[in-house]
Amino acid sequence: VISKLPQTGTNIFTTMSALAAEYGAINLSQGFPDYDCAPQLIELVNTAMKNGHNQYAPMAGVMALREQIAIKTEKLYGARYNPDTEITVTAGGTQAVFTAISAVIHPNDEVIMFEPAYDCYAPAIKLMGGVVKSLELEPPSYRIAWDMVKRLINNKTKMIILNSPHNPTATILSREDIDELSALVKNQDILILSDEVYEHLVFDGQEHHSMARYPELQQRSMIVASFGKTFHATGWKMGYCLAPAYLMAEFRKIHQFLVFSVNTPLQYAIAEYLKDENTYLDLPLLFQQKRDHFRKGLEQSRFQLLPCSGSYFQSVTYDAITDEKDTDFAIRLTKETGVAAIPVSAFYRKGTDRHVLRFCFAKRQETLDKAVDKLVKV
Amino acid sequence: VISKLPQTGTNIFTTMSALAAEYGAINLSQGFPDYDCAPQLIELVNTAMKNGHNQYAPMAGVMALREQIAIKTEKLYGARYNPDTEITVTAGGTQAVFTAISAVIHPNDEVIMFEPAYDCYAPAIKLMGGVVKSLELEPPSYRIAWDMVKRLINNKTKMIILNSPHNPTATILSREDIDELSALVKNQDILILSDEVYEHLVFDGQEHHSMARYPELQQRSMIVASFGKTFHATGWKMGYCLAPAYLMAEFRKIHQFLVFSVNTPLQYAIAEYLKDENTYLDLPLLFQQKRDHFRKGLEQSRFQLLPCSGSYFQSVTYDAITDEKDTDFAIRLTKETGVAAIPVSAFYRKGTDRHVLRFCFAKRQETLDKAVDKLVKV
Ligand SMILES: CSCCC(=O)C(=O)O
Ligand SMILES: CSCCC(=O)C(=O)O
Repeated sequence: VISKLPQTGTNIFTTMSALAAEYGAINLSQGFPDYDCAPQLIELVNTAMKNGHNQYAPMAGVMALREQIAIKTEKLYGARYNPDTEITVTAGGTQAVFTAISAVIHPNDEVIMFEPAYDCYAPAIKLMGGVVKSLELEPPSYRIAWDMVKRLINNKTKMIILNSPHNPTATILSREDIDELSALVKNQDILILSDEVYEHLVFDGQEHHSMARYPELQQRSMIVASFGKTFHATGWKMGYCLAPAYLMAEFRKIHQFLVFSVNTPLQYAIAEYLKDENTYLDLPLLFQQKRDHFRKGLEQSRFQLLPCSGSYFQSVTYDAITDEKDTDFAIRLTKETGVAAIPVSAFYRKGTDRHVLRFCFAKRQETLDKAVDKLVKV
Repeated sequence: VISKLPQTGTNIFTTMSALAAEYGAINLSQGFPDYDCAPQLIELVNTAMKNGHNQYAPMAGVMALREQIAIKTEKLYGARYNPDTEITVTAGGTQAVFTAISAVIHPNDEVIMFEPAYDCYAPAIKLMGGVVKSLELEPPSYRIAWDMVKRLINNKTKMIILNSPHNPTATILSREDIDELSALVKNQDILILSDEVYEHLVFDGQEHHSMARYPELQQRSMIVASFGKTFHATGWKMGYCLAPAYLMAEFRKIHQFLVFSVNTPLQYAIAEYLKDENTYLDLPLLFQQKRDHFRKGLEQSRFQLLPCSGSYFQSVTYDAITDEKDTDFAIRLTKETGVAAIPVSAFYRKGTDRHVLRFCFAKRQETLDKAVDKLVKV
């Protein structure tokens, strides 16, 4: 058979997690917590199953959950989404991203994205016959040069993909970025896919500039969110998409045939859990403490910390240690030092190596301490 | 935005289930049980969550589950699938179907399918730029005329989609069908997508002719299975795909970016539950009893029963009652008689109406009795 995605091999998350397991290294590579989700949330799933919520959910999701999502979105971002027509529950953020791209990208449509980027955007675009137009961002600031973006726009440009808080760079879009973006797309037929799965992980009192906040952006945006990231249960694979009705109608046409609906008892449980807003309002502080603790530890090392404004990732450069490629160094660090990280070159389609490693700090303090103990010796 | 699937509206399952709810009708339309899954299975999910299995599963699925699937497949069909490279756990059968089609269908590839057909095949093919070549089958036997299939084959033919036991017609492939199919694809570069989600629901001591049984078919087949159907938990959205390694490699390239992985605690629970083979070996008899009970009841009615060899669906014609279109009659039956069914014309892309309704008999005896009481009065 002729491959649809000939360049795809085993992805970096699988590779590094496997290597970490093989060498008994502390796994700060793949992004997931090493502590558990709330026992109360588990109990709610159990209750939902025992209450017989085990058959097909409605295609767009359990209404009680869509209503809670609408309430939360209005509370946080002042945007009203209609649960009937503008909210769809998905099998995780990745399914939402894939579905959103599939719903609107036709052959030869161009999509602007920024690199480093999470690895699922480009393959979905390619699969739909779309063309990736990408701009590589530079450490340490990874700032978007909007005048460069402007030059990429032409009459084939169908979509811009944004991701804030950003994986892997831990940057967030600023109010200035929003203004530049707004000016850029004004009067243009350009959609936005906004990956906001780390929406709650924004630090130092800064705001998350969700596309939902800005009506002129909101009306052209498909926004992706993730309960797995938010509730420390990445293995539950539950997320959602927000979009104005005209876009959501197209999203659902794909969703219906791609998965039809998603896990029912989890939806009932999360709907109930969301009623307590502390479940998500406490998150920024929780992760800020983890970030601060990890950074403080690494300050004693020869790694150089890059800024971290959001997400649960901390990037570092390592010029004082070695001039190895990041992939080579990440492997050696796992084998010899016993700490696994992600080489950020894996987030560039060309494998651009800027000597950056990404550590996930969504870990118990004890785990972070053990990792730091090892890393300071490098 | 230009729609990728302009003809897609609200699907028939959503429509009829909503109408049934609105009119308080007994819902024999959408295919799902009105009784619950095993309490033991729910307890296993609860245990998995409490044991901390709440983070990302491996991309291809939890190994313990893949191993159980391999054991079951060998026991039932004598085929050995390598859990490492030939089995992938999916978010339900629908995701497996969509992923399989996405993995191998390139623009202008032709796919042969039979109608009536489950509604997710054709949209997935279209989305990939493929061309649907379909053969309409005729009640009451819905037999495949293999010489007609042969005429559809040309050098663009990439895949044939089969579904046995069949939804909605309740037919199963026979040994003769297998022989005809084998002769047809021999020395041809044609793949098979085999939707076997009702594999355990085959009646009257007949065999399920899984593609896994026949090496010359198995080596070109992607087989789709569903735990939702098998374990009476359609809302859990858990299934899998079996395929030889060269096809599974392509399947996983898509799966990785479409959903990455699927719900972790459910996978642990089902792996454990599968260890007891009675969980699936008891199914044919359970559903045969339901079928027999429902058919016996309907024999007193003016509906004419079509054959039912497998699946949990019973189709009927109704020429003695009315010459209405099946969609009109299905709506009237829901509103006036209080029983919801699926008009089988919804399973034809052209809406071909052969005056057939489909009832789901995966229901408690009490529910079937109530429905029969109403239907005999029509
Ligand atoms: C789906 S595995 C990757 C998890 C993640 O978001 C990351 O590590 O970047
Ligand atoms: C995904 S809803 C449809 C369920 C089903 O398989 C059917 O009714 O045919």
